[in-house]
Amino acid sequence: MSKYKVTFLPDEKEVEVKDGTTLLQAAEKAGIYINSLCGGEGLCGECRLQIVSGNAKPDKHTIGFLSKDEIQNGYVLACQTKVEDNLEVVIPAKSRLEEERIITEGARLTYSEPEKIVLHKRPYDPASFFEPLVSKVYLELPEPTLEDNASDIDRIVRELRKKSRYSYFEIPLACLQNLAAKLRDNTWKVTVTYARHDVIGRILEIEGGDTTDHNYGLAIDVGTTTVVTQLINIKTGKVVGVEANHNLQARYGEDVISRMVFACGRGSLHPLHQAVVANINNLTQALAQEKGIDIQDIAAIVAAGNTTMSHFLLNLIPCSIRLDPYVPTATIYPQILAREIGININPQGILEVIPSVASYVGGDIVAGVLACGLADKPEIKCLIDVGTNGEIAIGNNEWIVCCSASAGPAFEGGGTRSGMRATKGAIEKLEITNGQVTYETIGRAKPRGICGSGLIDAIHELVRNNIIGPDGKFDLSRNDKRILEEENEPNYILAFPEETETGQAITISESEIANLIKSKGAVFAAIKSLTDYVGLTFEQLDTIYVAGGFGSSLNIPKAIAIGLLPDIDTQRIQFIGNSSVMGARMALLSAPAFEKTIDIAKKMTNIELSSYPPFMNEFVAALFLPHTERSLFPSVHY
Amino acid sequence: MSKYKVTFLPDEKEVEVKDGTTLLQAAEKAGIYINSLCGGEGLCGECRLQIVSGNAKPDKHTIGFLSKDEIQNGYVLACQTKVEDNLEVVIPAKSRLEEERIITEGARLTYSEPEKIVLHKRPYDPASFFEPLVSKVYLELPEPTLEDNASDIDRIVRELRKKSRYSYFEIPLACLQNLAAKLRDNTWKVTVTYARHDVIGRILEIEGGDTTDHNYGLAIDVGTTTVVTQLINIKTGKVVGVEANHNLQARYGEDVISRMVFACGRGSLHPLHQAVVANINNLTQALAQEKGIDIQDIAAIVAAGNTTMSHFLLNLIPCSIRLDPYVPTATIYPQILAREIGININPQGILEVIPSVASYVGGDIVAGVLACGLADKPEIKCLIDVGTNGEIAIGNNEWIVCCSASAGPAFEGGGTRSGMRATKGAIEKLEITNGQVTYETIGRAKPRGICGSGLIDAIHELVRNNIIGPDGKFDLSRNDKRILEEENEPNYILAFPEETETGQAITISESEIANLIKSKGAVFAAIKSLTDYVGLTFEQLDTIYVAGGFGSSLNIPKAIAIGLLPDIDTQRIQFIGNSSVMGARMALLSAPAFEKTIDIAKKMTNIELSSYPPFMNEFVAALFLPHTERSLFPSVHY
Repeated sequence: MSKYKVTFLPDEKEVEVKDGTTLLQAAEKAGIYINSLCGGEGLCGECRLQIVSGNAKPDKHTIGFLSKDEIQNGYVLACQTKVEDNLEVVIPAKSRLEEERIITEGARLTYSEPEKIVLHKRPYDPASFFEPLVSKVYLELPEPTLEDNASDIDRIVRELRKKSRYSYFEIPLACLQNLAAKLRDNTWKVTVTYARHDVIGRILEIEGGDTTDHNYGLAIDVGTTTVVTQLINIKTGKVVGVEANHNLQARYGEDVISRMVFACGRGSLHPLHQAVVANINNLTQALAQEKGIDIQDIAAIVAAGNTTMSHFLLNLIPCSIRLDPYVPTATIYPQILAREIGININPQGILEVIPSVASYVGGDIVAGVLACGLADKPEIKCLIDVGTNGEIAIGNNEWIVCCSASAGPAFEGGGTRSGMRATKGAIEKLEITNGQVTYETIGRAKPRGICGSGLIDAIHELVRNNIIGPDGKFDLSRNDKRILEEENEPNYILAFPEETETGQAITISESEIANLIKSKGAVFAAIKSLTDYVGLTFEQLDTIYVAGGFGSSLNIPKAIAIGLLPDIDTQRIQFIGNSSVMGARMALLSAPAFEKTIDIAKKMTNIELSSYPPFMNEFVAALFLPHTERSLFPSVHY
Repeated sequence: MSKYKVTFLPDEKEVEVKDGTTLLQAAEKAGIYINSLCGGEGLCGECRLQIVSGNAKPDKHTIGFLSKDEIQNGYVLACQTKVEDNLEVVIPAKSRLEEERIITEGARLTYSEPEKIVLHKRPYDPASFFEPLVSKVYLELPEPTLEDNASDIDRIVRELRKKSRYSYFEIPLACLQNLAAKLRDNTWKVTVTYARHDVIGRILEIEGGDTTDHNYGLAIDVGTTTVVTQLINIKTGKVVGVEANHNLQARYGEDVISRMVFACGRGSLHPLHQAVVANINNLTQALAQEKGIDIQDIAAIVAAGNTTMSHFLLNLIPCSIRLDPYVPTATIYPQILAREIGININPQGILEVIPSVASYVGGDIVAGVLACGLADKPEIKCLIDVGTNGEIAIGNNEWIVCCSASAGPAFEGGGTRSGMRATKGAIEKLEITNGQVTYETIGRAKPRGICGSGLIDAIHELVRNNIIGPDGKFDLSRNDKRILEEENEPNYILAFPEETETGQAITISESEIANLIKSKGAVFAAIKSLTDYVGLTFEQLDTIYVAGGFGSSLNIPKAIAIGLLPDIDTQRIQFIGNSSVMGARMALLSAPAFEKTIDIAKKMTNIELSSYPPFMNEFVAALFLPHTERSLFPSVHY
């Protein structure tokens, strides 16, 4: 068997691989992660590479995804191209799975900050009690005497009871094993770290002296696309730093279904588990380093994710989630030591995962319900979390119904050729006036692509300017230099090559618009079906909270105008950004809030839209801008 | 540095050691364990060895402990003799720390069987509820459907709730990680092993199919001298087998004080911890092999021991136990996985240690209180557990007081030259009539020594025959061929050399009798002080239970006659043998019984005799046979 050298440019990383290895595998060996939305099945066309030296056989899959120009310039699909020669390969920026951190303090607007939402400070709301999941208490104990010779641990627990809400504590053996010396060496002054553990307290660590200033935790949103981590000072409740990175599982598939197919089929669960653990360890290390914090001082993590992500995180078999009758291994997850799954924080540090409701209604939406206070008051509210899976919850302090619908990755910047996640260089706002396109990018950088909020703006502007019709089809009678026939369909140029970072035009095609209409249609149909199911009208919804990874802001009137959101008074619609990490943070800082997530999850009734016949009619009716039934959108006038 | 060969006979084990190594260390290196009651300090004279080839320097310690004959025959103390020549050494049977198992089915009378005591089957007694600490339940689950698609673990817990007393279960991550496959591969038929864990249930293991027939547990008495283990079939509640061995900690000191001195001074805690873990692993393996049981099928252990033993077992620092104000690390111990301390059973198997009351009132007496039902009814009862430490409890279902007094190892066969533990060849019954001694040995073997019950008989017979006076002094005016002056004091020959296994006489000396009188005096003074303390007379005690390692039986009238036990109607005194292992077994088979041990420990008021002035007077008054105050023993007539 022959071996060949593959050199990846511009990195100049070189690997030697066996005859027949695919370029995707070669790149992975070189430590370069290539977009592979379909999990390397040749179905998404995302893993374009350009061969600049050496011969690579074109294959039948290549033809369908690449333009003639691209084929002539040596473009291939990495997953379908076998190495049979020494090669030099250029990885276009778009094909690279970005590993760099997305949010830094300098670009903090990329994701919404939880501070933007007002925390519920009402006394009747348990979520507002500041009673962290993991607390540190400094104790100065009275020395034992013959009259008071309680055991060492009893002496500690006696004082601890006065200073915490628990009357009973579980004590791991490790905390007892050196205790006698620790107490006496530190003249009976110690700091006890304890966690809420089910209904009791659990002592995690007993340290000599006063260490209460060193108490940090992590709130994590484990998204299908992005993992966002907040480092929290548990003593003050303040967010010390925020970091995010792309879910490294993306190399095994773009959405939860393709990742489950990988884990349960030709691949295995383990690499998916390890990938997300690597995400968390990378973020933790980066945050700790950036903020000058010892990783040992992090003793608690609360993670929220959809049910599949929670399963991957905990290394639980997810295979029956995607198969009728859609059964997860668990919806309420055990408290574990973070090190049990290889997460590097304090070895006694705990990990809690926000409970899920069902296979397709996860802890992320439960965290969102907590964060927006939907379950707190009698007023009926609605939470719409538009991720790769759109999740909707409607209810109040007495009942909550929820559902989910596959929205696809479009609003998170996936699935379209120019689409990108809400990172630096993404067009996030856009206007078309008299054939002129004006836009704003994240970080005021040269545009590299367009994120969810930009796409919503784009579609709205296209239909408002009659460039496309309410059916999403281009008006080809127009004489517009920005309309270009390519790959047998019309494209609209949002940014010309000379304006962009990559030198390639940022475009949107008719079929991509059709996909976005399907996405918004699925979300709207889900909202409509769920309100109908409970016998409500949109007007009866006190507030609609919109969460998701669209970008730093969302133009709500435009989101209404394309038919994504119900046409109600825009004052009653709030964009709250990442409600999942916000809920995780609230649970981290408040054990009653964490307990409330369990109540919320148990209280939520999941409506399986796939077995709710009206949904399909609603979906079809919503495949129009804004909707086939115009009376639903009285404020919209194209 | 020179090296020398040491050959131990009769084993013919050879080791090479450095110049200056002691013979005790050489023996340990050869894997031979020598009696060393003082921890190798040259203070007990127990580690006699005979040099048969090569030269070994005599030392000053040797002179005091050995007879002239012995010195002439090459006897030395192993701990005080350095190897400075190639040696051949004979280990006399008495010096060997016996590792062989003490109790086999064939010699089952060595220790009392718990079956001898009637278990409390009254409905109001929670200890009698058969509700094992660890249970196995076989579940045939309904397959999930779209209408009933609860998560896998919810499906299990739903059924489990119907079949157990717990409504809430803690589930370790490991039980979830392969669950989806396990359920589907076994067509929804599984066996769940779960334990009581504080107030909730804790799932330990989920296995495919029906494994309920494979459910065993261990009840262990971790004694200072002996470790006794019962293998229990948890499904039936039956004792499958019993094994015991000598506490391997004995090499570091005979009693808890000298072992604590070792652990906290020139030695360290770890070897003592490891020694008792080795005891348990050896017994477990022997029992499993003997009974053809897979060690994986043992999922629960309940251990009872005094506070120091419990600390050694759990590797807790015991150093402040022996120092004023006598503070242990813990009195209530956490449930742990047995493997956390290196005990080899099912890796998910748990270990519970019966709670202690205070530094010198341990879980063994708490287990005893549970076992004899002292805390169950309004009648006031008394439990006397005569171990190396004598422990007394008096009380009823409303209150319990307790105390402990150092009885020394005499009644367990230690501390006297001919004393031995209640194993094969020990004289356990003895009578002297007209100068003739008749006796019975355990296993009907040739006598090797005398155990506790034999010593009680011996003293009684000596005083009854006026060979000694009520002060324990010999009547030297008698012409008795069995009285022999040796080492400047009179000795009484209980068995002549030609009768014994070792060819050496079994004797009892005046100073040994004095020690036994001190032992019995301490126990009686403790009983007397405690009854006085609570304002009771002996007559008001409904029953006295006597527990301890005397032997298989105890002659109660003789124990009264020497002043060990109060002089009440012998019908009201019951010898119950090892009440510690009995209580451990009850706790293993009944979670309510285990919970009751916590109540008992909390309810017991410990009276520190060292700070109770009348005790010393009582002790001095009791240094007489039966007592200086004859009116306390109206039935005794010497």
